[in-house]
Amino acid sequence: MTTLDALFDSLKAAQAKLALENRAAKDRALYAVMKAIDSRRNAILAANEADAEKARQNGMKDALIDRLLLTNSRIDDIIEGIALVARQEDPIGRVRAGWTLPNGLVVEQITVPLGVAAIIYESRPNVTADAFCLAYKAGCSILLRGSSAALESNRALVDAVKEGLVQGGGIADAVALAASGSRDEVDLILSARGRVDVVLPRGGKELIRRVVDNARVPVIETGEGNCHIYVEPSADMQNAVEIIANAKLQKPGACNAVETVLVHKDAAGALMPLLAKRLAGKAELRCDGTSRAAIGEVPAGLALTDAVEADWETEFLDYILAVRTVDSVDQAIEHINRYGTRHSEAILTKDLEAAERFERRVDAACVYTNASIRFTDGGQFGFGAELGISTQKFHARGPMGLEALTTIKYRIAGSGQIRT
Amino acid sequence: MTTLDALFDSLKAAQAKLALENRAAKDRALYAVMKAIDSRRNAILAANEADAEKARQNGMKDALIDRLLLTNSRIDDIIEGIALVARQEDPIGRVRAGWTLPNGLVVEQITVPLGVAAIIYESRPNVTADAFCLAYKAGCSILLRGSSAALESNRALVDAVKEGLVQGGGIADAVALAASGSRDEVDLILSARGRVDVVLPRGGKELIRRVVDNARVPVIETGEGNCHIYVEPSADMQNAVEIIANAKLQKPGACNAVETVLVHKDAAGALMPLLAKRLAGKAELRCDGTSRAAIGEVPAGLALTDAVEADWETEFLDYILAVRTVDSVDQAIEHINRYGTRHSEAILTKDLEAAERFERRVDAACVYTNASIRFTDGGQFGFGAELGISTQKFHARGPMGLEALTTIKYRIAGSGQIRT
Repeated sequence: MTTLDALFDSLKAAQAKLALENRAAKDRALYAVMKAIDSRRNAILAANEADAEKARQNGMKDALIDRLLLTNSRIDDIIEGIALVARQEDPIGRVRAGWTLPNGLVVEQITVPLGVAAIIYESRPNVTADAFCLAYKAGCSILLRGSSAALESNRALVDAVKEGLVQGGGIADAVALAASGSRDEVDLILSARGRVDVVLPRGGKELIRRVVDNARVPVIETGEGNCHIYVEPSADMQNAVEIIANAKLQKPGACNAVETVLVHKDAAGALMPLLAKRLAGKAELRCDGTSRAAIGEVPAGLALTDAVEADWETEFLDYILAVRTVDSVDQAIEHINRYGTRHSEAILTKDLEAAERFERRVDAACVYTNASIRFTDGGQFGFGAELGISTQKFHARGPMGLEALTTIKYRIAGSGQIRT
Repeated sequence: MTTLDALFDSLKAAQAKLALENRAAKDRALYAVMKAIDSRRNAILAANEADAEKARQNGMKDALIDRLLLTNSRIDDIIEGIALVARQEDPIGRVRAGWTLPNGLVVEQITVPLGVAAIIYESRPNVTADAFCLAYKAGCSILLRGSSAALESNRALVDAVKEGLVQGGGIADAVALAASGSRDEVDLILSARGRVDVVLPRGGKELIRRVVDNARVPVIETGEGNCHIYVEPSADMQNAVEIIANAKLQKPGACNAVETVLVHKDAAGALMPLLAKRLAGKAELRCDGTSRAAIGEVPAGLALTDAVEADWETEFLDYILAVRTVDSVDQAIEHINRYGTRHSEAILTKDLEAAERFERRVDAACVYTNASIRFTDGGQFGFGAELGISTQKFHARGPMGLEALTTIKYRIAGSGQIRT
């Protein structure tokens, strides 16, 4: 029996207990965890500094070190995130539907915890706290498998979480860190059918691909976002430019950033000069012929190149924006359903018919009218935190909060019925 | 490009159209399918007779041939099944939840079709019609992969379905039969990630195991049912005997049949003599020492043996019932959570506290109080038909009707919002 087998057993046993806890007990435990993280702040920061120092020595890029870093203010955010989740309604024990059969049997669908969850994630240590508190509130045990680069930070955080759970009368064994750092560990998690009820990969494309391709346990695929904004002639062009700039520049590495703008041929003349000016010196534009011509005089500092087919397929995760001209809303929908990753898609228009057509026909987790697609996020949606953004249709779709960690049980109350 | 690739493409294209059909259009198509099946009755019966004749020549067992056989009355049932599904509410386009964010964005969860479903099933031809009509009503295309033993029957049924769809103005390409009969075909379906949104295996343990172990597409595991009935001292013993007899004898090959009775030590004396008498000549009892002793004088014709550990683990699917004595409701729960397959479990009691304890702590799709577990069935639950009974917790649990073939899309309506 491996260490991991023992962890699976204790997570399962803890989950059976946690499933019976009422909301008050779960929230009390979460508030105690907040206090424990607060009081262990220095130990957490010191552990994080050790991780960061090691990363610097290993030559990790600055952007990645920044993702790894904890500060007092980031710890405040972590604590506030737990508070937000504690304030959410209990997702467990809801009667989702119920009816009485002709023979008098009362059938009810009751929400219950999904069971034991595992999350495999890259360096951001805030994911440790987010995933824990969502799982706990949903009555699920969680196995945390962070990156080796964040091992000391995660250890310090999980120690604080467990201390808080003990102090708050919670179930400390409902959370565990898979800390061997070996790649075998991931394989063992992915093959633990019957012991792990869901695996959530959260990180880069390669990690997600590896998990999806190898898992024998249920997986929720997350994160890949080749997202579009389609601009119609009736759109408010100043607002369109601000929405595009927001969706491209605010956090280009995010999965809900825009990668390609689709512009209606009758909107290109109005949009492109404004957009070129707004993005000059900030992002590269890769345009098809029509949208490029529509720019007219190229503003100083604008990086401008010709788009190629590969650009439509690429999630740049960078200060690069592809632009393609389309003849109609249908052509925009066709482009999106062909090249998109079913994540977040927007139409900017004042035309009701086009908006409805786009909403119904675009196949994506989140379809927006007249707003930035950057809102696709558990926090923004009001879930308190998120486990990631599901780009699959099965079990959970879009930003995943508490609901993604629940399932149902049928409760059937009879008075002696037999089937005839 | 294989034939199957072409089928996947046409199923996907058809699904995109079907997703936009309103309820009236879908129901009209289903009613036309009912008519077409009715008018092609002779062709379907002739095709089925050819399958049955071939099966007899191949030495198929009578019980299996009976499962394969269609009769006029079974065709009536198929038609009535489609009518029941047509009468169900449309599962698509429901606003499942909705809220307004502080910035004014309106966020709604709308139910949408899951996409392209595939069902891999054994010989019963009624599954062909059930799976088709549930998928169609849920806006999903469906690939039907029945057994080679039922190939002619399925061909005749699918021909009728397609004819009905054409006559009723429906989308005929939303249904297809995978008819090569080769095992490779199953492997191709199981690896069609991105082209098939869910695979439903329906049949024996071996088929389900093969699908679960090899699929790279989402699967819903179905069917295995090692189910229990637990009898407390406060139960009405006459009724308990009738419930157990119903759950064992009515259809022992069904996944919702009872396999082990757990009897409280203080109930054994009252239950066992009645149960032994009721099952004498009808089913074999495999008892532990206490429950065996409680029978007293063994009734004529009762097959009675000593239970062994393996009996607790076995889904007999036969006229065999294991009986074990327990000291308490907790011991019953422990036994069930250890040996059960999370399918259907019942407590027979008049004690409210025991009933609640059992309901909350037993981990199964369906938990009954004072009723036969044979009611775990889409038809019995009022779903019109069923795709199978999910024994997993992920995406769908318990009898699967229309809801199992849906997912959600977030619709977000803005007025120019950007994320700050």
